[in-house]
Amino acid sequence: MRNTPPFDTERLRHLAGELIPHVRELAQAGWTPATSSNFSHRLDDRHAAITISGRDKGRLTENDIMVIDLDGKAVDSEHRPSAETLLHTQLYRRFPEIGCVLHTHSQNQTVASRLYAGIGHVHLAGYELLKAFAGNTTHDTELDLPVLPNSQDMPTLAAQVDALLDDRCMWGYLIDGHGLYTWGRDMAEARRHLEALEFLLGCELQLKALHR
Amino acid sequence: MRNTPPFDTERLRHLAGELIPHVRELAQAGWTPATSSNFSHRLDDRHAAITISGRDKGRLTENDIMVIDLDGKAVDSEHRPSAETLLHTQLYRRFPEIGCVLHTHSQNQTVASRLYAGIGHVHLAGYELLKAFAGNTTHDTELDLPVLPNSQDMPTLAAQVDALLDDRCMWGYLIDGHGLYTWGRDMAEARRHLEALEFLLGCELQLKALHR
Amino acid sequence: MRNTPPFDTERLRHLAGELIPHVRELAQAGWTPATSSNFSHRLDDRHAAITISGRDKGRLTENDIMVIDLDGKAVDSEHRPSAETLLHTQLYRRFPEIGCVLHTHSQNQTVASRLYAGIGHVHLAGYELLKAFAGNTTHDTELDLPVLPNSQDMPTLAAQVDALLDDRCMWGYLIDGHGLYTWGRDMAEARRHLEALEFLLGCELQLKALHR
Amino acid sequence: MRNTPPFDTERLRHLAGELIPHVRELAQAGWTPATSSNFSHRLDDRHAAITISGRDKGRLTENDIMVIDLDGKAVDSEHRPSAETLLHTQLYRRFPEIGCVLHTHSQNQTVASRLYAGIGHVHLAGYELLKAFAGNTTHDTELDLPVLPNSQDMPTLAAQVDALLDDRCMWGYLIDGHGLYTWGRDMAEARRHLEALEFLLGCELQLKALHR
Repeated sequence: MRNTPPFDTERLRHLAGELIPHVRELAQAGWTPATSSNFSHRLDDRHAAITISGRDKGRLTENDIMVIDLDGKAVDSEHRPSAETLLHTQLYRRFPEIGCVLHTHSQNQTVASRLYAGIGHVHLAGYELLKAFAGNTTHDTELDLPVLPNSQDMPTLAAQVDALLDDRCMWGYLIDGHGLYTWGRDMAEARRHLEALEFLLGCELQLKALHR
Repeated sequence: MRNTPPFDTERLRHLAGELIPHVRELAQAGWTPATSSNFSHRLDDRHAAITISGRDKGRLTENDIMVIDLDGKAVDSEHRPSAETLLHTQLYRRFPEIGCVLHTHSQNQTVASRLYAGIGHVHLAGYELLKAFAGNTTHDTELDLPVLPNSQDMPTLAAQVDALLDDRCMWGYLIDGHGLYTWGRDMAEARRHLEALEFLLGCELQLKALHR
Repeated sequence: MRNTPPFDTERLRHLAGELIPHVRELAQAGWTPATSSNFSHRLDDRHAAITISGRDKGRLTENDIMVIDLDGKAVDSEHRPSAETLLHTQLYRRFPEIGCVLHTHSQNQTVASRLYAGIGHVHLAGYELLKAFAGNTTHDTELDLPVLPNSQDMPTLAAQVDALLDDRCMWGYLIDGHGLYTWGRDMAEARRHLEALEFLLGCELQLKALHR
Repeated sequence: MRNTPPFDTERLRHLAGELIPHVRELAQAGWTPATSSNFSHRLDDRHAAITISGRDKGRLTENDIMVIDLDGKAVDSEHRPSAETLLHTQLYRRFPEIGCVLHTHSQNQTVASRLYAGIGHVHLAGYELLKAFAGNTTHDTELDLPVLPNSQDMPTLAAQVDALLDDRCMWGYLIDGHGLYTWGRDMAEARRHLEALEFLLGCELQLKALHR
C-alpha cells in the first residue's frame, strides 16, 4: 500500500496549476531551448515542487513536476531530480521568505554571461526597470549581476552562490555559457525579476553593439 | 451605503473592453516587461480609466483598471494611482481632443532613449511611416522625438513635457532609460502612433548599427 | 434600388476568406506596423479586391476589403481607394496571370531600402531560397531586387515600375524608406515570394553587420 | 483495385499526428520560410514518412505527408519526393536507431553557413547546451558543426555527408547558404538537437557581432 505523501497534495496541484502556464510562456519566448531550464516553487517549509529534468517546457503538464525535500532528494517519486536541484534548494533553505526559483537559458542571458565572465559581473545602471527588483524604489541605483564560472560540480557552484549571498542582497546570478537563476517571494515576483533581468541584459548587449 | 460613482459605469466597462485586448497584445509583443508600463483612456471631461500600477499586463482584467480624476486622484477606488499618472492627466487636461495615452518600455525605446539622451531628441526623416502621425500627409517630413532626463519627481517631468508642448505639435516623447509616452484621439490613433514610433526607432537603431 | 454589382459576389467572399488569415498572419509577424501595408487579389479580368487604407491589419474583417476596377476606381463601394492602389492595378493590367499583390513594411524591408537606395538595388546571390521565385530551379542564380526612390506621386512611381518590367522578369521591388511590393499567380505564390524576400533581406543585413 | 500499402497505415497516421504539431511550431518560429524545409520520420525498417515538397509548413496537414522507401522512391503515392529526400534516407539506411530527420532554414542557420563556409565548420565550445546532444554529459566539450558547399546534385552532397559520418559521431550539419540537417532517435531527440544547434548558432553570431 502506498504511503500518504508527507506534503499537501492539494497545494501541489494548485502550484502545478500556477507553474504550468508560466513555464509554457517562458518556453514560448524561447528562453528554455532544447529541454533546458528548470523551475521550482516552495510547497512548505520542508518541500518544493520542481520540473523534472529533460522535459519539453513548451508542453509541460502535471506529470512533468516532482516533489523534492530541501536537501534535493525526491519525495514520493521514482524520478531522479536534476543535479541542479541543489541551486534551488539552497535558496529555499537560506531564505524562508523565498517561494519561487526560475532558471532559464535565453540567448541574451547566455551571450551576456560569456561576454562578462571575465570581469565577473554585469553592471546595470541608469534604467527605470531597476525599480522592478524588490526593495528598490528609484531608477537612480545600480546593480552588479554576478557571473559565476560554469561547473558540473553543483556543491562547488552552490558554495560560490552562498558566498555571494553572505555579502549582499541579490535577486539573481548568471552562470558562464549557461543561463540565469533568479527568484522571488512568489511566482509573480520571481517572474518580474526574470523579465527585468532579461530586458536589462538585452538593452546592455544592444547598447554595446551600438557603442563600438 | 456606497455612493453612486461620479462617472458612467457603462462607459467604463466599455473602455475596459477596449483597453484589455490592446494592452495584452502590447504585453505579448514584449513592450511591458516586468509589470512596467501603464495605459489610460479618457472616460469623460473630468475622469480617465488607467491601469493599476504593478499588474501583469499580459494578464490584464477589469480588476486591474481604476478611475482617476484629471488631477490624478483615485475616484471610487481604494487603489493608489501610480506616480506617473500625472503624465497621463496633463495630456487630458491640456488637450480636450486627446482620448488615450499609452506608456510602454520596449527594448528599442529604452536603448534609443539612452543613446540619444545626450542630444535630447531622436531625429526621424525619410520614412513613409511618418505619414502615420495625425496631420502628416507625406513621408517628406521630419520629426524630432524628444528625450527627457529620467526622474522620480513627476511634477518636474510634467513641467518639462508642458514646456515642449508649448513649443510644438508632438505625439510622443521618450524618457531616458525608461520608455515612451504617446497618445491620440482614441485607442486606434494612439496605438498607430505607438507602432509607428516603435518601428521608426527600430529602423534607426538597426541603421546606426549597420552604418558605422 | 441598389444595382447588382458587376462582379461575382460569391468569389469576392471566397477571396476575402483567403486574404483575411494571411493578412492577419503578416500583421502578427510585425510586417504591417501602424495600419500600413495593403493587399489585393484579382477578382476577374476587370476587378480586384483590396484592403481599405488605414485599417488595422491584425484585426482585418470582410468589412475592411473593397472592390476596385483595374484603373483603381472604387466599384460598388463608398470607400476611396488608397493612392497606392495604382501600384497593384498596374500589375493586374500588365500580367493577366498575376492573381495577388502584397505590399508590406517590415523593419528589414525598410532598413534595406534605405541602405541600398544609393546603388538602386539589393544584390542577392548564393542562397538556396532563390529557388523560391517562380521559374528558378537552382540556388546558383542571382537576383537584383530594385530599390525605387519614394514618392507620393503614384503615376511617377508606377511609370518607374513599368520601365523596370519592360527590362526584366521580376517578382518584387523595394521603395526607399517605405517597404516592399511583391506578387504571384495566387496568394500561395505571392506569399512564398514575400517570405523569401523578407528572409533574404534579413540574411543580407545580418551578414553586413557581421562582415564589417 | 488499389493494393494494400506495404506499411502500417495506423503507424503512419500516428506519426503524422506527431509530425504536424512539431512542423507547425517550427514554421511559427520562422525556420521554414517560403515553403522551404522538409521533415521525416522512420515508419519501419524499409519506409519513412516525409513532408511533400513545396507545402506551406505552417498549414501542414496529413495530406502534405507521403511515404518513401529508403531509396527515396514514392510508395503508394502519386507525389514525386523532393530531390533532398536522399539526405534523409541515407541516415535511415546507415543508422537503424535513427527515427527522425529535420531540415530547416532559419536565418541564423543560413547566415552562419555563409560566414563559416570558408573554414568548413562552426566551432562550438563553452556552452552548457552542448549537453543537449545525445551522448554528452558535460558542457566541457567541443563540437565542430560541418558546413558543406551547396549543390543541387544530391548524390554528391550525400557522399560528402557519408564521408563525414565515416569519420565522427555527429548530430547535424549545415549546407552553405541553405540550412541545417539534424536528426535523432525520435522526434523529441531530433527537435532537442535542432533547438540546441539553432540556439548555439544564434549565440555565436551575436558574440561575433559584439566582439569585433
